[in-house]
Amino acid sequence: MNTSFFHDMLGSIAERGRALIERTASRPELRAETRAPETLESLSRALLSGRGEASGVALARQLLDRYAREPIASRIEFFRLLAEGFDPDLAAIGRAWDAYRQDTSPRNLQDLLEAVEPPRQELFRRLNLAPGGTAALVAMREDLIRHGGSEPGLRKVDDDFAHLFGSWFNRGFLLLRPIDWSTPAEILERIIRYEAVHEIQGWDDLRRRVQPSDRRCFAFFHPSLVDEPLIFVEVALTREIPGSIQGLLAEAREVLPVGEATTAVFYSISNCQPGLRGVSFGNFLIKQVVEELSRELPLLTTFVTLSPVPGFAAWLAKRGAGPELEPGWHGDAAAAERSRAELLPLAAAYFLTAKGPGGKPLDPVARFHLGNGARLERLNWLGDTSPKGLREAHGLMVNYLYDLRFIEANHEAFANEGTVVTSAAVRQYLPATQPAPESVA
Amino acid sequence: MNTSFFHDMLGSIAERGRALIERTASRPELRAETRAPETLESLSRALLSGRGEASGVALARQLLDRYAREPIASRIEFFRLLAEGFDPDLAAIGRAWDAYRQDTSPRNLQDLLEAVEPPRQELFRRLNLAPGGTAALVAMREDLIRHGGSEPGLRKVDDDFAHLFGSWFNRGFLLLRPIDWSTPAEILERIIRYEAVHEIQGWDDLRRRVQPSDRRCFAFFHPSLVDEPLIFVEVALTREIPGSIQGLLAEAREVLPVGEATTAVFYSISNCQPGLRGVSFGNFLIKQVVEELSRELPLLTTFVTLSPVPGFAAWLAKRGAGPELEPGWHGDAAAAERSRAELLPLAAAYFLTAKGPGGKPLDPVARFHLGNGARLERLNWLGDTSPKGLREAHGLMVNYLYDLRFIEANHEAFANEGTVVTSAAVRQYLPATQPAPESVA
Amino acid sequence: MNTSFFHDMLGSIAERGRALIERTASRPELRAETRAPETLESLSRALLSGRGEASGVALARQLLDRYAREPIASRIEFFRLLAEGFDPDLAAIGRAWDAYRQDTSPRNLQDLLEAVEPPRQELFRRLNLAPGGTAALVAMREDLIRHGGSEPGLRKVDDDFAHLFGSWFNRGFLLLRPIDWSTPAEILERIIRYEAVHEIQGWDDLRRRVQPSDRRCFAFFHPSLVDEPLIFVEVALTREIPGSIQGLLAEAREVLPVGEATTAVFYSISNCQPGLRGVSFGNFLIKQVVEELSRELPLLTTFVTLSPVPGFAAWLAKRGAGPELEPGWHGDAAAAERSRAELLPLAAAYFLTAKGPGGKPLDPVARFHLGNGARLERLNWLGDTSPKGLREAHGLMVNYLYDLRFIEANHEAFANEGTVVTSAAVRQYLPATQPAPESVA
Amino acid sequence: MNTSFFHDMLGSIAERGRALIERTASRPELRAETRAPETLESLSRALLSGRGEASGVALARQLLDRYAREPIASRIEFFRLLAEGFDPDLAAIGRAWDAYRQDTSPRNLQDLLEAVEPPRQELFRRLNLAPGGTAALVAMREDLIRHGGSEPGLRKVDDDFAHLFGSWFNRGFLLLRPIDWSTPAEILERIIRYEAVHEIQGWDDLRRRVQPSDRRCFAFFHPSLVDEPLIFVEVALTREIPGSIQGLLAEAREVLPVGEATTAVFYSISNCQPGLRGVSFGNFLIKQVVEELSRELPLLTTFVTLSPVPGFAAWLAKRGAGPELEPGWHGDAAAAERSRAELLPLAAAYFLTAKGPGGKPLDPVARFHLGNGARLERLNWLGDTSPKGLREAHGLMVNYLYDLRFIEANHEAFANEGTVVTSAAVRQYLPATQPAPESVA
Repeated sequence: MNTSFFHDMLGSIAERGRALIERTASRPELRAETRAPETLESLSRALLSGRGEASGVALARQLLDRYAREPIASRIEFFRLLAEGFDPDLAAIGRAWDAYRQDTSPRNLQDLLEAVEPPRQELFRRLNLAPGGTAALVAMREDLIRHGGSEPGLRKVDDDFAHLFGSWFNRGFLLLRPIDWSTPAEILERIIRYEAVHEIQGWDDLRRRVQPSDRRCFAFFHPSLVDEPLIFVEVALTREIPGSIQGLLAEAREVLPVGEATTAVFYSISNCQPGLRGVSFGNFLIKQVVEELSRELPLLTTFVTLSPVPGFAAWLAKRGAGPELEPGWHGDAAAAERSRAELLPLAAAYFLTAKGPGGKPLDPVARFHLGNGARLERLNWLGDTSPKGLREAHGLMVNYLYDLRFIEANHEAFANEGTVVTSAAVRQYLPATQPAPESVA
Repeated sequence: MNTSFFHDMLGSIAERGRALIERTASRPELRAETRAPETLESLSRALLSGRGEASGVALARQLLDRYAREPIASRIEFFRLLAEGFDPDLAAIGRAWDAYRQDTSPRNLQDLLEAVEPPRQELFRRLNLAPGGTAALVAMREDLIRHGGSEPGLRKVDDDFAHLFGSWFNRGFLLLRPIDWSTPAEILERIIRYEAVHEIQGWDDLRRRVQPSDRRCFAFFHPSLVDEPLIFVEVALTREIPGSIQGLLAEAREVLPVGEATTAVFYSISNCQPGLRGVSFGNFLIKQVVEELSRELPLLTTFVTLSPVPGFAAWLAKRGAGPELEPGWHGDAAAAERSRAELLPLAAAYFLTAKGPGGKPLDPVARFHLGNGARLERLNWLGDTSPKGLREAHGLMVNYLYDLRFIEANHEAFANEGTVVTSAAVRQYLPATQPAPESVA
Repeated sequence: MNTSFFHDMLGSIAERGRALIERTASRPELRAETRAPETLESLSRALLSGRGEASGVALARQLLDRYAREPIASRIEFFRLLAEGFDPDLAAIGRAWDAYRQDTSPRNLQDLLEAVEPPRQELFRRLNLAPGGTAALVAMREDLIRHGGSEPGLRKVDDDFAHLFGSWFNRGFLLLRPIDWSTPAEILERIIRYEAVHEIQGWDDLRRRVQPSDRRCFAFFHPSLVDEPLIFVEVALTREIPGSIQGLLAEAREVLPVGEATTAVFYSISNCQPGLRGVSFGNFLIKQVVEELSRELPLLTTFVTLSPVPGFAAWLAKRGAGPELEPGWHGDAAAAERSRAELLPLAAAYFLTAKGPGGKPLDPVARFHLGNGARLERLNWLGDTSPKGLREAHGLMVNYLYDLRFIEANHEAFANEGTVVTSAAVRQYLPATQPAPESVA
Repeated sequence: MNTSFFHDMLGSIAERGRALIERTASRPELRAETRAPETLESLSRALLSGRGEASGVALARQLLDRYAREPIASRIEFFRLLAEGFDPDLAAIGRAWDAYRQDTSPRNLQDLLEAVEPPRQELFRRLNLAPGGTAALVAMREDLIRHGGSEPGLRKVDDDFAHLFGSWFNRGFLLLRPIDWSTPAEILERIIRYEAVHEIQGWDDLRRRVQPSDRRCFAFFHPSLVDEPLIFVEVALTREIPGSIQGLLAEAREVLPVGEATTAVFYSISNCQPGLRGVSFGNFLIKQVVEELSRELPLLTTFVTLSPVPGFAAWLAKRGAGPELEPGWHGDAAAAERSRAELLPLAAAYFLTAKGPGGKPLDPVARFHLGNGARLERLNWLGDTSPKGLREAHGLMVNYLYDLRFIEANHEAFANEGTVVTSAAVRQYLPATQPAPESVA
């Protein structure tokens, strides 16, 4: 298998994408390639017609150029058209269904599938023919979510985007890449911008997170979105499971010789593409990074997160159970100690008893990691003393442990019975009368 | 946009693919990763269950490894299972349809789409999670076509493959690459093997087709099938429209200085992946190569094929209209001239009047190029005097002309009315009484 | 010619270099690979002996590791050893010379060349065998210049470095690369650090210089110093010859559509490697960038610098001819105008009459560009109103014009007769009585 | 360290090289860039003059183009000019030597070095400024060796080439690359052509040597000769030290699972560039390949050659000691056995006692490997029964063992005392009366 030959191939995608963007950005006269004043609607209909078969690439290009020049109001209007004018044909479905239920032949199944599929989906597939089409479609959905997200009628269009993107951005097509100080600036800049958990304060801060040998960062990319990370995770290599994000990220910390690390800490994971909402990457990313790091550093034995608890303070407040905390309390040893004794049992209860719809934990971060098969490993008092950490969780952070041997069992216990798998260290905070959840791992 | 960063990314796909192949090929003991003796069926069900959510990549890998070890009979058995056991649920469709026809809400549409989609499709998507999954799925379909193609019940499985591949191998995800003497040997070897029109007789013959500056070759690739061309086209740069393939490929010919070429001749186009049957690449390939060559060589004015006429002799024979031709007739000037006068009008009739189902021309190559919007430009007597050329077409070859200005109109005339667009040079062979088809271009 | 195959090859150099650095940085126990306590001297002698022939790579590695661990005082001591202990053998030269002057045979010439060459040169060549050797040698010379530069006895060692580097860094081995926003951060960081003319104030400032489509940056690299630019030039694309660096670099300026540019302005050129002092890159860099830009943007007609005049104020002060300038004078229109009338004729005199040793202009920037064959095109009053610009040149900047048609003639006039080629616009400031230098271009 | 950024850089070298070649090959009108009819001599003098400083790249290009168009006789005439007209100036050397012997100051040493260096060397350095210059200079020396090699006066020119190439092709600048079935065809084609030991019979034979997982091939490349291997070595991975080349290369052999290999066999090593004669690569290549393979396959314990004995038959014949061998004797078991008993002691004597000038073994292959520090390990009767093997060595082959622990000691014993280090298995063939050479390893 030859990678370099293939590397060259990618140039073409990149260049075609760039060509499109430059053309539409800087040479407006080029964009009017139409023979007649065409609208988004007429172009859409043409693309789905016989003209689309003969000149799909050119028509798709034209429609995307046109879309790029429209103000947001017209774009939303276009989505309304897609929602209403490109729905499946009710009568055709009825006929196909009648035929299929009488004879479940392959032919009839195909007819039924075709009748049910909204023509929007084929329109999107044909738009993808154009150079840069994938990026343009992802941006289109971002427009839709951002500016039309509250409009129930547009939900159908969003569903079709989501369906296609789920197929196109299948994990099998994604590429894992390390992000480090040799990564192109334009990609690093996006890492700074997209970091959603612990804000990156400019280039020096970024460098501290990606350059030292005990820090790693990995991202998923898609071949058709060449310089756009889809999701990335930041990792610290340590000697033990850390309890404080400020400690972990301290400017003055000592770099750990990489051979001494036993623990990989996932301390931030951020999605980058609003237009890919609902396409799940995080689960795959964490597990592949565990694999990569295990291969590179066989001495690593522990894979763990250092995670925020975004819903804790609000949950306490709602229950009226919150502690009385003076501003600056966490800097006062005695006050901190008092609040610790009071709050850790409440935290254990929050994770183990506070349920949202579907019987799953209220905390979204907990849902994500437990759903991946991780175990709630430890509660960290004063884990995050930033304003946000104090505001959302009274400074609480937690660790979720990824132990590949138990991932599957944990996941199934969680998925089927809602079991929140925890360590004894967490369960100790529960009152003795409450039956401890069975530990799977 | 940074291409080199991305180039490196591709390494990972290539290596993961290779890792899988090597593992399964050389270390059988590694392949039994299961906790229990699992079957293709149990693995398939697990992959679609909660276990598949937690451990999708590993399960998919396991299933593909298992499949790779099965003999062909078990593989076909597996396809039967997929056809029967992974069909959509009739009752569920009925319920979803009832709900939808009463209220075409987004929610109801989603439910209907989900009910109708055969679970096979999701199974295939999850198999694609594994490293090398895409290649394995394409190979799987090749098994199906080759060994189960005649079994009507398996048609459904093939339809689902075709649907997914149509989406995954969308032209927007393909990469056009020149094939030349600096291409890796393993890819060139595939070009030799896959050439389907004018056989390549080993490496020296290949070199004559890709190395001289007046010869070009281009292929489409997909990022997940890194060293597998999907389709390729061979091109000769000439001073005029050629009429003979033996002349075009003569070993002793003189190389044309590239600056003197006015005409690009597409003389061979071959699909490489039986597992991608029905996914259409050829149309896009020709048009993009026209674009590429126009950009590189602005003096090119004519883009034309030199094409076989595979159905001509059989059609004549069926009609009893074939000429009486002695062996070796084409080497005898007088005999050749006689047959020419007799056969060219028959050839014109073949193209313009011999229709298959749907009113389209009987000749498959004609259907392809006319469907792309090309025009039938010229009939070439003694165009291919190889045994195959004589046997299938009494030596006839034709040129189809790709003129981008008329592609769309030609295509529509052909698609909507079945019009075979031809040049006057071809129409002259028709009897005067027969109304000449209207020329679009 | 296949570039991708070759691209992969480079990985090996990069990785070998990295391997060395990591090893010596993080695993001190690995660095003591010797069988006995060896000194820099014993290792040097071993490397030049038979052991060096058998184990050159390992010995070179060991010596470089050892050197890297020594404090600077021991390094200088090592250079003293090289200067004294690795000089050519006087008696051997005498014998070889006697033989050669009697018979200038090839054999005798070889013997003479070998006798004369200081053994240091062969030592350096053998040190280069080690992975990362080239970078280590360049760093070694940087130590020598920085810490031993004032010691006359070490001059010989520096001369040998300079001789070898002149051959190894021959322009034919250099690679020109654009530097832009897709360049790896580690290289951009060096651009920030090495910029020597108009300081780059962090990443935002850098981005303004490399990302907009009317800004370019190019650097020379050497295959064995993979992530170290050797020299770079910053270019602005404009509609006319600019007169003010503050105007050119203004944050709020409008970006020029690249198709409207007629002029490429070289406004900063910086050497990056102190260890390569005296190896001349600038001349080649400017000329190749002119070629590159001409090819990419055929509408460019003018290639010009915007250059500082670092010696002007000092020269005036020395002559007692400086103007009386109040602080802030350049912000006062009347004062500025007065100083303009006074200073421009002095500036013209500075360029045309102030000569240093060898009859060349006193101004080092002038010597560089005139020596390259450029012409002094324009004096720009208030061209640089930064503190440095006011301090060194009372705000004066100039443009040198690179017109490839006249480069050679200008260079020869300058080199042979010391002629400072100027435009009429500059000559007008000279008093009429002084004969204007003949204009070559 | 960022490799991909650097990879892109290399493109420029490749493209510049290609640009030059294409230009000179296909557009003769472009090649006459001179202002006047210039000769190789006038261009050479210009390049060394002030014009060369201003327009070195262009002049070098012009001279190389001009050279490329000259017939071989004019090229040799040019070399004669270089030999006679570009020698150092005797009087200048005399003056510099007088100054230096009175005062060995750095300045005087520099002056002496400059006086002694033939101006040819600087001319070659300046020719290297042109795109493709390095390749052109290597080709130039190939012309010189091939067509002027017997002319004593040209020896000086060859010496200067050799000196420069020795510095430019320093091992620190070389790149080791695996050669396999994913290598570009144009490079594989060169491997076929350059193989000098056991001829490669076309592409299928080549594939058998580079594709199976128990076969490897490695080559050195130089960044400025991008698609030209300099030297390559073919390796077989085996379970034991092989004794027969026909056995090793048998078409029908079974491929060894790579995990079972214990032994790496270097069975062919070929130089590719006649123009680089005398620049030593083989020693470095073998040792680096040992390192690479050790890293990849830690189970390998033995690194050994399977080598021809090219001078054996001639030596025997000269001594009149050769055996009486009938044609086809090696196929006759009894005859073979007789000759074995007779010839192995003679072979041992050949290696241990037959000395050439300088007291080194007569056999050139032995000199190479013993000089590298290898040990003569085993004599293989009927090791090569090809016509060449029978003709040159009566079928004898030998193994040289590379044991990195003893390389240095072996080399020194060989270099200083001429000791041929052998195994006991070889020494047993010596008559007891003869003192066995001391074994170093």
